[in-house]
Amino acid sequence: LENGQDDDFMTEFMTLHDFEKGQVYASFSKNIREVAWRVMDDETLATVFDNLEGDAEEVVDLLQEVPPQKGANILVEMFADNEADLFQAMPARLASTYLALMPDREAQEIRNLIKYEDQTAGALMATEYLAVAAGSVVKDVLAQVKKQAEEAESIIYVYVVDEKHRLVGIVSLRDLLTHPDEMTIESITNTRVISVKAGDDQKEVAQVVADYNFFAIPVTDDDQHLLGIITVDDIVDVIDEEAVEEYSGLAAVDVSDTDDSPWHSALKRMPWFLALLVLGLISVALVASFEHTIRQAPILAAFIMVIAGIAGNAGTQSLALAVRHFGSSTDKSFWKNLISELLSSFVLAILAGVVLFGFVFLWQDNEGLALAVALSATVAILLSALLAYLVPAALRKVNLDPALVNGPLVQTVVDWAAILVYFGIATSMLNEFIGK
Amino acid sequence: LENGQDDDFMTEFMTLHDFEKGQVYASFSKNIREVAWRVMDDETLATVFDNLEGDAEEVVDLLQEVPPQKGANILVEMFADNEADLFQAMPARLASTYLALMPDREAQEIRNLIKYEDQTAGALMATEYLAVAAGSVVKDVLAQVKKQAEEAESIIYVYVVDEKHRLVGIVSLRDLLTHPDEMTIESITNTRVISVKAGDDQKEVAQVVADYNFFAIPVTDDDQHLLGIITVDDIVDVIDEEAVEEYSGLAAVDVSDTDDSPWHSALKRMPWFLALLVLGLISVALVASFEHTIRQAPILAAFIMVIAGIAGNAGTQSLALAVRHFGSSTDKSFWKNLISELLSSFVLAILAGVVLFGFVFLWQDNEGLALAVALSATVAILLSALLAYLVPAALRKVNLDPALVNGPLVQTVVDWAAILVYFGIATSMLNEFIGK
Repeated sequence: LENGQDDDFMTEFMTLHDFEKGQVYASFSKNIREVAWRVMDDETLATVFDNLEGDAEEVVDLLQEVPPQKGANILVEMFADNEADLFQAMPARLASTYLALMPDREAQEIRNLIKYEDQTAGALMATEYLAVAAGSVVKDVLAQVKKQAEEAESIIYVYVVDEKHRLVGIVSLRDLLTHPDEMTIESITNTRVISVKAGDDQKEVAQVVADYNFFAIPVTDDDQHLLGIITVDDIVDVIDEEAVEEYSGLAAVDVSDTDDSPWHSALKRMPWFLALLVLGLISVALVASFEHTIRQAPILAAFIMVIAGIAGNAGTQSLALAVRHFGSSTDKSFWKNLISELLSSFVLAILAGVVLFGFVFLWQDNEGLALAVALSATVAILLSALLAYLVPAALRKVNLDPALVNGPLVQTVVDWAAILVYFGIATSMLNEFIGK
Repeated sequence: LENGQDDDFMTEFMTLHDFEKGQVYASFSKNIREVAWRVMDDETLATVFDNLEGDAEEVVDLLQEVPPQKGANILVEMFADNEADLFQAMPARLASTYLALMPDREAQEIRNLIKYEDQTAGALMATEYLAVAAGSVVKDVLAQVKKQAEEAESIIYVYVVDEKHRLVGIVSLRDLLTHPDEMTIESITNTRVISVKAGDDQKEVAQVVADYNFFAIPVTDDDQHLLGIITVDDIVDVIDEEAVEEYSGLAAVDVSDTDDSPWHSALKRMPWFLALLVLGLISVALVASFEHTIRQAPILAAFIMVIAGIAGNAGTQSLALAVRHFGSSTDKSFWKNLISELLSSFVLAILAGVVLFGFVFLWQDNEGLALAVALSATVAILLSALLAYLVPAALRKVNLDPALVNGPLVQTVVDWAAILVYFGIATSMLNEFIGK
């Protein structure tokens, strides 16, 4: 396809969807890519680079296959949010090279964008939006929409700003089209603007956009100056990313790429696997320290697993609920929720105690043993719920994402607690049930 | 606010965002709602009902507070996808009442919509889209856009259909605005349409929309007849819903509502908690059946937890990867992936074996015991990986969602396997390490 017939290829290529352009380009071998970027103009290449999947680092590698000046041109033509992502992934020296090769205004804009922290609204926003001055009439705004339609990332909303570029309202394209040409923009402007601040966490932004069913949301600084917009397609990515993070945490493995080779997959799983193994050895030592008790009542060994298991299950449930809770709500009373969580776990703990007492009593006809097992399970479940609540709460307290919590790690600590509680209680009650 | 000053209230209410209208209405007491729906016209109430959060059942309850004819009018004015959701949540008798009170054409449309299975593209789609005949010119299409803008759920794309209403192409509003009035629509139509079939799973639809960054995607039947469109705001909800499902499965608790009362939360967690407790009792019986072995070597008890724990962790990792894998990809070779997964787990299993052998040997100076523990861990991890792969694979085989998998349930079965393997090996090797 490639060699010689450039025109045919380009005609064919231009009929592809933007997403496919990125996919096709990435699938070329390096040699073919070199032919490809030579025949494409900067704008087409910008579309390709806007739509490349994978890490920003990999995209930067592809960008470096192109001469620096052309690379800088491509960056200028890209959407500002994607461009900023690439700049953030580059070594500092490469970034200054590209910035030097750009028009001053573009370079300044990028410098402003890359100062925003990852996972904030500022890092997500694009600067290609449509702003018009308050006081314009419908006809003129429509003319501007037509002129800027090519460049803007979204033309669903037009943003109305005052002389200081502060956001005062939003007009939907729908309203522009359905109102008379000479009407002033004010009369169709919605001034109850929902906007986010550049420093807001991307999770909160996603929640707002999802609740309101917006196609785009404006981003401002603390003084309401319009800085950019975030479109719903970026929100889709955020929701996916956050969900993968929570899920990965609960399983202690990064599930973001499921098509790894076996060796790569093993390497990815290894760090936590090994850490949990070593921490598991502490359980061994703990149980072994009660060897004397076990020697006197070997039946005790049979119940360790069910006590640790049921405490672990209760802990996993509490943990999952707490992570979602802390992740989705912005301000909640810490103590009120802790008590609510403990009350709920208390119901389950009592239930488990009753079931275990009944089972052990009927099976072994030994109420001392039954009491020790039931009591241990109840205490272990409550401890486990407390732990599962405090860990994500603590992460949030120090401004970390509660989704960073590691399910199996919490479970391992629950195991230790269960062992100590169980054998502690069993040892102290040994005389109650031994020899019966 | 309510009593008397209806006009003030309505003026205030109409400035709210659609989402807020739903929130405010739901927050009223029943008496106030009665005043509210009396002063609102059908269209405003339709917006309210389109934006009510919560189960469809709860929304149906609110709808029944309104007289049947007004209820039917509200349903007619709602977006078809939301309307269909409500019909699906109603008792059959109530549904026929509303259908009888609707214009025939509307009633027929709803009958067509509610036949689609839940979680398919058909169940998600809205029928408020803009279709124009091939052969129109830009000016006429724009006039149509303006006319229908009020009603359509999205006016970002216009769909071009042939005389049999088969989808032949898509025109973006952006292209309509930037091309001359007299141009035929064909010359700016994109005929490489990406569409989905009404029976497609919502997860696959979400993937396509997320990949292509579409604002809306058309839904067709098997003969390419245009049936409706799915907008990105519905996709946002799908992605969230699917993520919650996977996460809930891994934790064995429904995390979709995190603001329950303690008692309600306990009730929600109880079914799986109790089931897992009862299944955990099987572990007790299994360990107890090896009481003779434990009596001879109480130190064995110390290693059950680390072996079951590490096998459980490996299993949880495998399970999380498998669920994501089966959930996100459509056709994959079963055997190739099973082997790849087992190879990856084999690396981890060997590693765990080596670490455990080293630890037990150094600690107890007993290579027989070290070998028994290491061998058990290796076998248990491999069994656990196999199980964690086969469960979601089997769910998919019978056309169930792999996300239905229950993490702690798999872990409980892993526990049984670990106990049998460990005590089986230990019992048969008892002479090798006892008394040393």
